[in-house]
Parts: sequence; structure tokens; C-alpha cells
Amino acid sequence: MAKDNKKLVKDITSMDVDFAQWYTDVVKKADLIDYSGVKGCMIIRPYGYAIWENIQSILDKRFKETGHENIYMPMFIPESLLNKEKEHVAGFAPEVAWVTHGGSEPLAERMCVRPTSETLFCDHYKDIIHSYRDLPKLYNQWCSVVRWEKTTRPFLRSREFLWQEGHTMHATREDAEAETLQMLETYADFYEKDLAIPVVRGRKTDKEKFAGAEATYTVEALMHDGKALQGGTSHYFGDGFAKAFDIKFTDKDNKIQYCHQTSWGVSTRMIGAIIMTHGDDNGLVLPPAVAPIQVVVIPVQQHKEGVIEAAEDVYNKLREFVRAKIDVTDNSPGWKFSEYEMKGVPLRLELGPRDIQNGTCVLVRRDTREKIFAKLDELETVIPQILADISRSLYESALENKKARTFTAETMEELIEVANTKSGYVKAMWCGDLECELAIKEKADLSSRCMPFGEEPIGDKCVCCGKPATKLVYWGKAY
Amino acid sequence: MAKDNKKLVKDITSMDVDFAQWYTDVVKKADLIDYSGVKGCMIIRPYGYAIWENIQSILDKRFKETGHENIYMPMFIPESLLNKEKEHVAGFAPEVAWVTHGGSEPLAERMCVRPTSETLFCDHYKDIIHSYRDLPKLYNQWCSVVRWEKTTRPFLRSREFLWQEGHTMHATREDAEAETLQMLETYADFYEKDLAIPVVRGRKTDKEKFAGAEATYTVEALMHDGKALQGGTSHYFGDGFAKAFDIKFTDKDNKIQYCHQTSWGVSTRMIGAIIMTHGDDNGLVLPPAVAPIQVVVIPVQQHKEGVIEAAEDVYNKLREFVRAKIDVTDNSPGWKFSEYEMKGVPLRLELGPRDIQNGTCVLVRRDTREKIFAKLDELETVIPQILADISRSLYESALENKKARTFTAETMEELIEVANTKSGYVKAMWCGDLECELAIKEKADLSSRCMPFGEEPIGDKCVCCGKPATKLVYWGKAY
Repeated sequence: MAKDNKKLVKDITSMDVDFAQWYTDVVKKADLIDYSGVKGCMIIRPYGYAIWENIQSILDKRFKETGHENIYMPMFIPESLLNKEKEHVAGFAPEVAWVTHGGSEPLAERMCVRPTSETLFCDHYKDIIHSYRDLPKLYNQWCSVVRWEKTTRPFLRSREFLWQEGHTMHATREDAEAETLQMLETYADFYEKDLAIPVVRGRKTDKEKFAGAEATYTVEALMHDGKALQGGTSHYFGDGFAKAFDIKFTDKDNKIQYCHQTSWGVSTRMIGAIIMTHGDDNGLVLPPAVAPIQVVVIPVQQHKEGVIEAAEDVYNKLREFVRAKIDVTDNSPGWKFSEYEMKGVPLRLELGPRDIQNGTCVLVRRDTREKIFAKLDELETVIPQILADISRSLYESALENKKARTFTAETMEELIEVANTKSGYVKAMWCGDLECELAIKEKADLSSRCMPFGEEPIGDKCVCCGKPATKLVYWGKAY
Repeated sequence: MAKDNKKLVKDITSMDVDFAQWYTDVVKKADLIDYSGVKGCMIIRPYGYAIWENIQSILDKRFKETGHENIYMPMFIPESLLNKEKEHVAGFAPEVAWVTHGGSEPLAERMCVRPTSETLFCDHYKDIIHSYRDLPKLYNQWCSVVRWEKTTRPFLRSREFLWQEGHTMHATREDAEAETLQMLETYADFYEKDLAIPVVRGRKTDKEKFAGAEATYTVEALMHDGKALQGGTSHYFGDGFAKAFDIKFTDKDNKIQYCHQTSWGVSTRMIGAIIMTHGDDNGLVLPPAVAPIQVVVIPVQQHKEGVIEAAEDVYNKLREFVRAKIDVTDNSPGWKFSEYEMKGVPLRLELGPRDIQNGTCVLVRRDTREKIFAKLDELETVIPQILADISRSLYESALENKKARTFTAETMEELIEVANTKSGYVKAMWCGDLECELAIKEKADLSSRCMPFGEEPIGDKCVCCGKPATKLVYWGKAY
């Protein structure tokens, strides 16, 4: 342990020196992941997985409250099934892993490991949907998916990742569109309230939308370094897949109709968003709602009589209302402080002989490092307040970063200038032509992040071609 | 819906006529699964998946209470990694699915989809275990695994299935053996208390043990038709994998030692065990602990004023202490009764106009069909008692079936006679030689299920060869 300890503490690159290296250091030193012998795939270690379990638990509850049911589909997609929707297969075929043999025998038809499961859900929906009474079907699946990426980074882009994928079928366009936007708002609310990460809600351009979708909506988050991260997407498919898969129902007037479809997903990528939004040079900073340990109890002068016992009493009390941990190992308090800072534990509770005598303790916030002196018999009131305050102030800091890093451009010169000298979002008007989107990518190295909801246009001409434009776009460099 | 309804009710084969067909009918008609376009893989539908979620939730809590942590490993195993432990690869290589291409490019090394993850865990453990202070490591993973079976049946044997796999590392043989038995007992207790299924705890013969294990322990359950089902296994590996993967630690005396290892798993197979232990000719019968709906409220004469409102009041009260559902669709009460019987809902609550007037309702048990008249203001006391009683009596019935179907044999003639005329376990003494085990398989078509814990020998000679024998074995036909 001693050997490991030394490696852990403070041994990370400063984020200002090398943000990418800082990120890699944090995911390793905070024990979130380990690299595996399988190229491009990561091992999610207990501490990292516990964050995912908390994310799952909150989202799963919300999905169920809005009438969604979980199911489990096979992980394989036969090639002929993947091929059924032309745009979809064109988007995904280049990056799937192909299974060609079962045991020593070649398969009659090769299968890919699911990169996403629209085709499987459609194949099932065609069998179980017959009447308008069967609609809507609101299914969700928690699973892992595989996309054979060339370059990978833990949580952000790995060949296998964990996610949830909702797939729903509706009687009308209106119902499906409402579902698409409801789930986008579920994601946005989760990001803002639980992960303390402000997001831009908006619609993707056609170039950036999901393969086979009619419209893709997104929540985009801005990382500490000014790069954008697509935080979650929700797709409206119209009846394109329904036609390809023959998913029909008899409506109230006894007419045969095609179903209208949605899908929506978020993944372990969210853990990357948390790290790069809230983290600092001491390591991870976790929003309390998903922190595996919300309060860590650290006895001070623990060799003195009664200290460990008193700390354990406090710990047992805490466990009734927060996720708590106590560390009574032989490591020094200073070492422990650094360790749990690295792990981003929102609140540290220090308890020494004098505190015990006075019935008090010291609480130290991970985010601001502020020290708060509290009475032991008031912890049940005080700690939830502080945790709520940490969440609020993490959100506000992130919002400030986002504001400070959101720029505007009215001409191509301005756009290029901002892209070259600043790091963040650039808001600019766009005519809607793919040519201009490609030109902006080529000249300014910016991609369209989204066309935001509810924001006023900042001009009436396309930043690229100067023609009339009504679409406001957030442009940025993205993870 | 009307069309579906007709298909659902009572339209199943009697279990006495054709048990296998009865099973297939139940899994389909109770909406547990659907067949998929992927041969040998099933779709676990919402009602089936909800049972699995309840199983997961109970077991996960127990694993965590005994110090286990969840992690997530890659789903792929490079061929060279699978090959590291010779017995293990020999056992699994014939039934794995091979990934050979990523996108359009052939992989440098092919990988299989995990059939089990010992090799991946070992590859990780070798990197993170250095000192006795790092031990024990108690990891668990919830995931899906793939075994390329030739013949498949829903839940019992499918090419992909969901499970948990615990993989632990210990400093000593004693610690690892204690863990192996502790987890076996966790499974046994879950089967008996929560699933209401009596099990035989025991050790597998060398022929039947897990590929690469030093000892495999099992919980065996007896199905309604007298066939045995291996319900869960727990393996002690010694330091075989540790040597193959070089997993070493420095002990307290500063000596280098190899780790001692265990693994243990249960799967969606448990749902098959529930069906075949408790089900009847009206469909599924679910033990209350894992039933997605524990009580279904069915209004009678629901067109009369106030009936639906009163039923909804009762339903809302129930939701506070049980998993409840209300059915206010237009289907007739009789149709609804059959529907929820098919789905194995443990308790039905009927409420009509006269009940409402009297402040009473009728409760009907799924298992015994007994009617219980209860006061509405006593439901919070009465219903949990009835549910506990249902669980107890399901267990008792299953235990009786097991007792009635457990036979003994002292000679080979007796063994063959029982195997040909009865259906169940046959207890017989065994010398320990593989030849006798193979001969019993050949002559009586029985496989060794386990050598049970804590049972007295029933003789001192091998049932097959007549040589001295100390091992009592449960023999049977197995799923």
C-alpha cells in the first residue's frame, strides 16, 4: 500500500500545462479506470463503476416514472438486419466488430456486436405492435455497445462503452416528437440538477445527425478547456425505419398506419464530462448526487484513546442520511486528505480529540476548500445543506466558465480569429447549406454543435456566405 | 388488444401432457420473452426483465453487504489471453463466438466474446495486487456472456445470457475456500428464502467441475418434472490461474506468494427455475420477493359509479408497501383474472360495489386460489402476512415434490430401474472413479449432480463397481 500511496498523491499533471494529460492522470489516479489487454477497451474500476451505478439509479427512476420499461435485446445483429435501413447501415457498418465464427464453425451469416439497437428493436416491434391500443411502446435498455474507433480515450471514446438506449414507438408524429423532446429535457435536467453541468439544448444540423434519423436533438456541455462535449442525444425517426421494417398498426378508424419512432441515449461519457467540467489540479471533483462517497470521516490523532471510537460513532450516524466512508488506516491525515481530494469526495469531516471534547468537528469542502466548524449533533441538518450548496456552486462555476467562453462572430474573419485565439463556443448565423458548414470546418476547424432552442438570432446573414440566414448555430471544437 | 387477449388466456399446453411445451407456452404467454431474429438468443421482455431486476437488486445488496464491489470488464477476450490457462481454454474454446474484423479490417488477433471472465480479471489482478494489504480483492460484475450452444431454450440455455460473475483473490487457501462456501450459501439462501426453491448444496465431481477449477460447488434444484437444474456454482481455483497469470503478492513476512482465487455466478437461468418449480396449468406462479407485481387490483362492476375511484384509492394505498398494479381496462374481470394468473401475480384484490359499501375486499391467492375476505383498513397488515405465507407454502410444496422425487439405489439394477421408471434424484454411493461415473451415464442416463454437504452415507459400496465407497452422490437427469 505504502508504495501505491506515494504514487497517488498529487502526482498529476497540471491542467493548465497539458489538459489531455491531466485528464488521463485523473482517471487513473482517482482509480476510475485501468487500461485492459483489449486495445481500446477500458476496465471500469469499482470507484468509477459506483459513479455509473448512481447515474443509472437516478435516470432509471426517471425513465420509469415517465412510463418506460426496461428490456434486454440480443447483443448481436445479423448483417441482413443491419442492412435493412440504408442510411443507418451506411453510418454504422464502417465501425462495427464482426463475429464470423461460433466455436470452430463459420457462421452462415456474420453478425456484428450492436453499435446501437434500432434494428433489433424494430424487428421486435414489428411482431408485437398491431393496434393503436399497443401504442405507445416505451422501451429502454441498459447495456454495452461496441464501435470500432481508431483513436480512443477513457470514457470519451472507447471501443466498448456502457449506455442506455431508449427506443419508442408512437401512433403519431406529434406523440413521437413530444417523446423526443421530453427525453432530451430529462437529460438536460439531469445534467444541470444532478451533475451540476449547464448544457445547451438544441438540434443537430443534418450533417451531424444520427444515421437514419429525421432529426437529432442534443445536450452539449462545455468542458473546462473550452472544448464541447455532446452529452446525450434524442432522435426522431419519423416512419423511416417503420417502413423498412414494416411496423404497422390499425388506427382508431381501422386504417393501417406506420409507427413513428424515437431513440435516445446517454453513456459512460457522462463521467468524462464530470471530470472535465469540475475537476482541478488536485484531482476529481464529484457532484454530490452521483458521488460514491459524499462524506469521508478522517480521525485526527487517531492513536489517542477514544478517537477512532468517536469517529466511528459519527460515521454510523452519517450513514443514515449520506453515502459515507471512514478511513482508519495507518496513513497520515495529510495523506488521507490528498487521497480523498484526488477522488473528488465532496466533503471531508475531520475529528480530533479536542473536537470530541467540544462535540464539534471540522468540515472541509472539496470544491472551495472552505472549512466549516459544525456541532456533531447538527450534522443531519448541516451536511445536506452543504452538499446542496456544493452542487449549486459547482453549477455556477461551470456556468461562468461557459459564459466566459461563449463568443460571437458575424464574419468569417471574426470566426477564424476567435477559433484561433480563443477556446469555447462561437455563436454565428448560418444559411443552412452543407457547403458553408464544411467551409467553416475547413477554415476555422469548428464543427456545428447545435442550433440552440429559444435563443434569438444575432444577425440575418450567414457568417460564411453572407446570404440570408435564420439559423443560429453554436460552433466549437468537440471531444 | 382484443386480438391479443384471446390468444393469451388459458391457451397453454397442460404440464402433464407435455412439460417442455408447457414451459415454452408459459414463457411466451406470460410475456417473459420473445424469440429474436438472432438464432439462439432471446429477447427478455419487460415483464421478464422486471423479474431479473428484482433478483439483481436483492443479490447485489447481499454482495455489497459482504464487502464485494462491482466493476466492468471488456466484453472481448483476445485469443492469447484465453489461451493462458490450459484447462480453461480447453473447456471454453469450442463454444465461443469469435470476432475477426473491426469495420472492414481484419483484426491482428481475433477475440472471443466473453463466455466467462476469469482471464480478464486475472489480467487486471496481476496489475493491481502487490502486497498482502491489497488482499482480499472482492469484485463482481453484472453483464451478459455468450456461449455458442447447439440447442437452446429460453432462460435455460441460450447463446447469450445475463448473469453476475464474482471473481475474488485471497492471500491464503483458507480465505479463498471460505469465500467459495460463503457465496454458495448466499445463493442457497436466496433460492430458499426469496425464490422459495429448496436446493441441495454440494460439490461437483471432477468430471462436472468448471474448466480450470480445483473444486466446484453447486446448488441443485429439482424441477416439477423431476429433472435437476444446476442453480448456481461457486469455484475454488487454488493458485492455478495465479501461476498462469503471475498474480503475486508480498506477504507479511516479506515473502512472495501466489494468490488464491474464487469465482461464482448465477444467471437468468434462475427465471427458468422459478417457472419450472412453481408454475402450473394456469401459467406462471411467482414467489412474492421477485414478482414485478405482488398484488393486482381488479375492480368488479367497474362501470358503476365510484368503483374505479375506490379501486384507485386502494391501489394508491397498496403502492406504499407492495409492488401493485391496477387494471381498469375494458376487459372483463374474468379475462383479467386469467391474465394475471398467467403472469403469476401472487395476490389478486377484487373490489366491487358491495365491498366498497362494507369497507372490505376479496383477496385471491395465486398459488392455492384460496379466497380471503379482508377489511380495507387492515390491508397493510394482512397483505404482507399473506405474501409471506405464499412464499412459505410455495417452498413447502417444492420441498414435498423434492422429497417425493428423491430415491435411493444400492445396486446398479436398482439405479437403472429407478432411472427408467421414476423421475427425480437418485442417491447412491460412488467410489470416486471416473469409469463408474461414465458407466452410470451410459447405462442409466444419469449424470452426477453433486456430492451433498452434511448427509450420511447410505452404504459403503460403489453402486456401480461394488468397491468401497465413501462418497454419496445425487444422480439425475439435468436441464
